[in-house]
Amino acid sequence: MNKKLLVVGTMAYDAIETPFGKTGKILGGCATYIGLAASQFDTQCGLVSVIGDDFEKGHIKLLKDKGMDLSGVVSIPGEKTFFWSGKYHNDLNSRTTLETQLNVLTKFKPIVPDHFKDASIVLLGNLDPNLQLEVLSQMEEEPALVVLDTMNFWIESYRDKLDEVIAKVDVISINDEEARMITETHSLVEAAQKLHAMGPEYVIIKKGEHGALLFHDNKIFCAPALPLEEVFDPTGAGDSFIGGFVGHLSQCGRISFEEMKTATIMGSAMASFTVQKFGTKSLEELTGPLLKQRIIAFKSLTEFEIELT
Amino acid sequence: MNKKLLVVGTMAYDAIETPFGKTGKILGGCATYIGLAASQFDTQCGLVSVIGDDFEKGHIKLLKDKGMDLSGVVSIPGEKTFFWSGKYHNDLNSRTTLETQLNVLTKFKPIVPDHFKDASIVLLGNLDPNLQLEVLSQMEEEPALVVLDTMNFWIESYRDKLDEVIAKVDVISINDEEARMITETHSLVEAAQKLHAMGPEYVIIKKGEHGALLFHDNKIFCAPALPLEEVFDPTGAGDSFIGGFVGHLSQCGRISFEEMKTATIMGSAMASFTVQKFGTKSLEELTGPLLKQRIIAFKSLTEFEIELT
Repeated sequence: MNKKLLVVGTMAYDAIETPFGKTGKILGGCATYIGLAASQFDTQCGLVSVIGDDFEKGHIKLLKDKGMDLSGVVSIPGEKTFFWSGKYHNDLNSRTTLETQLNVLTKFKPIVPDHFKDASIVLLGNLDPNLQLEVLSQMEEEPALVVLDTMNFWIESYRDKLDEVIAKVDVISINDEEARMITETHSLVEAAQKLHAMGPEYVIIKKGEHGALLFHDNKIFCAPALPLEEVFDPTGAGDSFIGGFVGHLSQCGRISFEEMKTATIMGSAMASFTVQKFGTKSLEELTGPLLKQRIIAFKSLTEFEIELT
Repeated sequence: MNKKLLVVGTMAYDAIETPFGKTGKILGGCATYIGLAASQFDTQCGLVSVIGDDFEKGHIKLLKDKGMDLSGVVSIPGEKTFFWSGKYHNDLNSRTTLETQLNVLTKFKPIVPDHFKDASIVLLGNLDPNLQLEVLSQMEEEPALVVLDTMNFWIESYRDKLDEVIAKVDVISINDEEARMITETHSLVEAAQKLHAMGPEYVIIKKGEHGALLFHDNKIFCAPALPLEEVFDPTGAGDSFIGGFVGHLSQCGRISFEEMKTATIMGSAMASFTVQKFGTKSLEELTGPLLKQRIIAFKSLTEFEIELT
């Protein structure tokens, strides 16, 4: 395995309202969160995305400074960057989309840079399944691992194409409600079995404040979420999770259930940082020692001793 | 610490309807579930409860055979045992009470048998707070540990008395919605802090299929629930949980955060058995080897390796 990690997804501006406050236009998009989380690890992360000419130079510099390769990011002159605005309700578990301006997204034709056509890991971020398939078709060598993150919108409106993508990936990452929606079953264990049958050898079901479950070959791993005094802004939590997940796998260079357990914890740690501040702020400020401290917190959260006589 | 575990709570008959089927009158009541779970451990478990003369001799024999001391169970002639009937909705997370016949419960005057007035552990099962206080007042020696389990009904209608009980206990076990209700706060971390401030040094917040959180002295332990293919009947899950919790502590004879982590896992294991069959059936059939196997499953569910360099 090489250390190349190819990420396709959106780069965006968001405007977010939570019970704790309101932002103006801030940096967002799944590729952005994924890249910021993955770049905490020793990996070569390349983004495939699209931006308009309103995308700030400072944000380009930020991502490059974190070590991301942006040669797969196309800028479309005269067009604006994808924009999303949403409002979270009091319990922060649900949100209302206030506005979606697709802008450049309607013209997005993903182009995988030549030097990433042999990437060992490909992460298909939350995006139109047609574009996800397009990226896969451009790979010259079969990746060691293809990971898919998706959402309710694509399940509802692009089901056939989405099923095509699911059949081609090794890992699917999806939240609990979406797993139930896609498999039409309530039990998450059964839902995971049905998702396995659709293709992916590894199934991750994200449960927000309740952590995440990793399923593989009749084995289950349960990663806790860090209980936080305050969840400030859930935007990007799922993207940060999967970014940390692939970042760890790319760094360690091994694909196994054992490594994926650790990767799931790394992802949970990333998500726990993201939700503590607006937007990408926590990930931008994150340092190695802070991450290490949090991983220790995750360990002590679940470790227990039992004498089995 | 002695190995005496005093449990006050209901003994009942239930009629249960779930999406998987329907029972006639079956054995129920919080003291019953607690006793059955606790009796998996090396402990002297005494029940303080009340029954009517319809309570079957076979059920008395069952509980005695499991090693329970029933000298604190009063039978009221000419009266019927407490009866509850309920129907679970499709997701099994919510239920509707179809019928409640208090029967003997209206005449319940708990009497702690003399030989249990020095019990090291007292478990106040889900019951009228006045009765819980009555039991505490009858203890001749201060217990090493008093544990309280309660529910929304008592929070809504007996709040002042309930607060009096909460101030007197070492551990409170409560579900997430009830923790939020009692503390009027959404964050479970904040809710636990507020519950600490009301008295208990240890706070357990049960999250059903998402496991349980144990809070103590700014430390948190997160016990997973075992992901099950099918939850058959959730009745008694919380009671089984707390029964396993105190059973373990009574057996090991040590009160500490470390032991309570293990106790929380034991409780989660008990709950995982209970929900797999109707009523008390799983607990009745439970054996040491089966329990051991499940504890191993809990361990592998959360163990992971991380190299921190």
